[in-house]
Amino acid sequence: MAVPASLRQDLGDVPILDDPGSLRMRSRDFFWFSPILKETLEDKRADIVVVPRDKADVMRVAAACARQRVPLTVRGGGTGNYGQAVPLAGGVVLDVTRLDQVIWHRPGAGRFGAGGRMLDIDRALIPAGHELRFYPSTRQHATIGGFVAGGAAGAGSCTWGQIADPGAVLAVEVVTVEERPRVIELRGRDVLKVMHAYGVNGIITEVEVPLAPSHPWCERIATFSSLSAAARFAHAFTECDGIAKKLVTVHDPQVVPYLRRLAPYAEPGRAMAIIMVSEPQAEALELLVADHGGEVTFRRAAEDARKVAFAEASGLQPLYEFTWNHTTLHAIRIDSTITYLQLRFPPANNLELVDWVAARFHGEVLLHLEFQRRFGKVTCSSLPLVRYTSAARLEAVMAELDGKGVAVSNPHTFILDNAGWKRVDAPQAEFKRLADPHGLMNPGKLKHWQEHKIEAIA
Amino acid sequence: MAVPASLRQDLGDVPILDDPGSLRMRSRDFFWFSPILKETLEDKRADIVVVPRDKADVMRVAAACARQRVPLTVRGGGTGNYGQAVPLAGGVVLDVTRLDQVIWHRPGAGRFGAGGRMLDIDRALIPAGHELRFYPSTRQHATIGGFVAGGAAGAGSCTWGQIADPGAVLAVEVVTVEERPRVIELRGRDVLKVMHAYGVNGIITEVEVPLAPSHPWCERIATFSSLSAAARFAHAFTECDGIAKKLVTVHDPQVVPYLRRLAPYAEPGRAMAIIMVSEPQAEALELLVADHGGEVTFRRAAEDARKVAFAEASGLQPLYEFTWNHTTLHAIRIDSTITYLQLRFPPANNLELVDWVAARFHGEVLLHLEFQRRFGKVTCSSLPLVRYTSAARLEAVMAELDGKGVAVSNPHTFILDNAGWKRVDAPQAEFKRLADPHGLMNPGKLKHWQEHKIEAIA
Repeated sequence: MAVPASLRQDLGDVPILDDPGSLRMRSRDFFWFSPILKETLEDKRADIVVVPRDKADVMRVAAACARQRVPLTVRGGGTGNYGQAVPLAGGVVLDVTRLDQVIWHRPGAGRFGAGGRMLDIDRALIPAGHELRFYPSTRQHATIGGFVAGGAAGAGSCTWGQIADPGAVLAVEVVTVEERPRVIELRGRDVLKVMHAYGVNGIITEVEVPLAPSHPWCERIATFSSLSAAARFAHAFTECDGIAKKLVTVHDPQVVPYLRRLAPYAEPGRAMAIIMVSEPQAEALELLVADHGGEVTFRRAAEDARKVAFAEASGLQPLYEFTWNHTTLHAIRIDSTITYLQLRFPPANNLELVDWVAARFHGEVLLHLEFQRRFGKVTCSSLPLVRYTSAARLEAVMAELDGKGVAVSNPHTFILDNAGWKRVDAPQAEFKRLADPHGLMNPGKLKHWQEHKIEAIA
Repeated sequence: MAVPASLRQDLGDVPILDDPGSLRMRSRDFFWFSPILKETLEDKRADIVVVPRDKADVMRVAAACARQRVPLTVRGGGTGNYGQAVPLAGGVVLDVTRLDQVIWHRPGAGRFGAGGRMLDIDRALIPAGHELRFYPSTRQHATIGGFVAGGAAGAGSCTWGQIADPGAVLAVEVVTVEERPRVIELRGRDVLKVMHAYGVNGIITEVEVPLAPSHPWCERIATFSSLSAAARFAHAFTECDGIAKKLVTVHDPQVVPYLRRLAPYAEPGRAMAIIMVSEPQAEALELLVADHGGEVTFRRAAEDARKVAFAEASGLQPLYEFTWNHTTLHAIRIDSTITYLQLRFPPANNLELVDWVAARFHGEVLLHLEFQRRFGKVTCSSLPLVRYTSAARLEAVMAELDGKGVAVSNPHTFILDNAGWKRVDAPQAEFKRLADPHGLMNPGKLKHWQEHKIEAIA
């Protein structure tokens, strides 16, 4: 659809982009990690991109879209992998990246504009000795609002669990898409109404989160004779309550060749662990590596790691950029037939299941493991690389994994309902009726909700 | 024994106390929590107390004792419960409390004189935004050296585990008791050589530990209909990885009346939970309390709690002084027939076993639970109050608990070997041969070691 001229009029002086390059770039995210999504989403385009400078601008956009019944899609850093920020029905893309104020912070908590990039937030917090508890591997570009709306875990999850855990987000401010937009503050459990809702039920404008007092995180790479040995080490290390840690990743020997810049730090055939640990405790970490027959092959001091992350020094990029779904990015650059899956291993028998997956799908599903705490227990998740052959085969693999007790979240769908948000009675859907009464927020993203709504209307 | 005059000569100007009051006070700790230890240890006395001003003084004392073959017992804050600081064979008591320098600290770690009291160390760290990870309920008097030598866990263990966990102590400096004393630095796992060794294998002079960046810890009391309900809440809360916490204690309804100053905050018959939580997350805590049918009856802001702890304000003492073994102190003041035990519940079925103990020994073993992480899992330990009848009955209770899978550490023995240090080939014993070749450090404390030594000589 083309947007009506009256919409532009309603937008007043809110900054707008409508050149083809901007429209293309700001209608995309990393959905192309999936060959299935790539086919479906490649051509979706916004008709206009708005870049509000402040909350008043946001409300003006929301009012205009509601009045003119124009679809509205919210966009953060565009680092999602499921087309979260792709405008399925065109219309307006609202880019929140200029809503990047540090609103306040005090020991243990801070409040930030939704468009603040997570690296920039951490930079602003350095003088206070605090930091965000989590960040995705896309820390440099991802926004805090986008992380709450479309993310789940990342570096930090080995200590703090996931972003949807109790207490992990203190409050979210949302602007509704109505002729007279309202500003709604969701606190406590009410934040779940908009978490992982891909921005379809209100425009997140501010996020309040607990902060972690920061440790000096140094980096280590260790190699092991097998995935199994590396996984056992990583599990044991994550269970060391007394060692402060930020990141515990394990790569199967088949994954390592895709991480070219790390090649000097692993002999062929070795599994690799990537660790961020509080610097004074690196010695305790290294003892545990040795216990598990591993070898430390790379060491970077906390201050050097920090400088590289904050672009104050050049050199090998921060190691977290070789973990989580950045792994897929590195692999696809080398082999475009690679895609990925999302798995979660149950704490009770995660190591046994890791061994099983590695053996059962050798050469096809290449595991890398992200160790984390889940509800007080240590386990691992994985975004394994997959050597893709067909959608049918991918479905078969997922079904077999699921049958064996490995939890699968399908990353090859842009329909939110299919990817974990499966119940229409979830608080997100209910809140959507309130925050987006005209159903303008990225229509097409919520299959069941729309059917339900149509039913209710009919 | 009386110390030889030549010892005093050898001590030079090292400060000495030998008045009867000082000798009595500095030959005691809180062993009288145990009716059994009380009988045995009540009359033990040092002949002389030395109070070294620095490491040179320590070495002078060590050399003098070695030369004159005079028994030497090291003493920190005297807050132990097993007679750790009681000189079984008289001789010299070495009081380390003037070795209280903050040697250095940087983000994530610090090094302290062994005699630094834990509250004073935390006070010194406030400007840096750091704190000790753990402290016992005796934080005000306990020294860091004493905690490493004779402690185990405390406030902080719900997050950081125990003091003997991997990485929890970075280094310990020890002075040997020889004619020419050596200064030995133990790092990494070598620290285990002197941990929980009750000071019998070297004089700990400095301790280096990882520090936690500090949160604003506010205090809450919540009450529940039963011990079981409170324990289920506390377990679930401790499993909330996303809520930063310092203390999670649960008191059986039968314990609460002994905590008189907390009486206003619990209706009779209610179980009580005492919590220290990062202030911005108190809201998330309170939601969980409500989920478990509990009621928050006391709230103190972090800044107010801090001021009371550091004696900058008056009022109800810090809540951690109603937890761990302070509970026993409060109870004995009211009923001198009370004593206690030390239990650890296995993570797999801790809550079931708590219910079993409470039912099986109702009226005799009154549980209070300290929730903590142990090797990556959540569980609880307990220092239950016991209505004492006889030593034989106490043995029978311990045997029954042990048989059911509740781990018992007997706190009614002053023999270190009986209380967990059971193997003569443990690293502590081996290190004793090196650090105390003449066997002068509190002789009588190590039964098996002495038998073994005599054998080796014969």
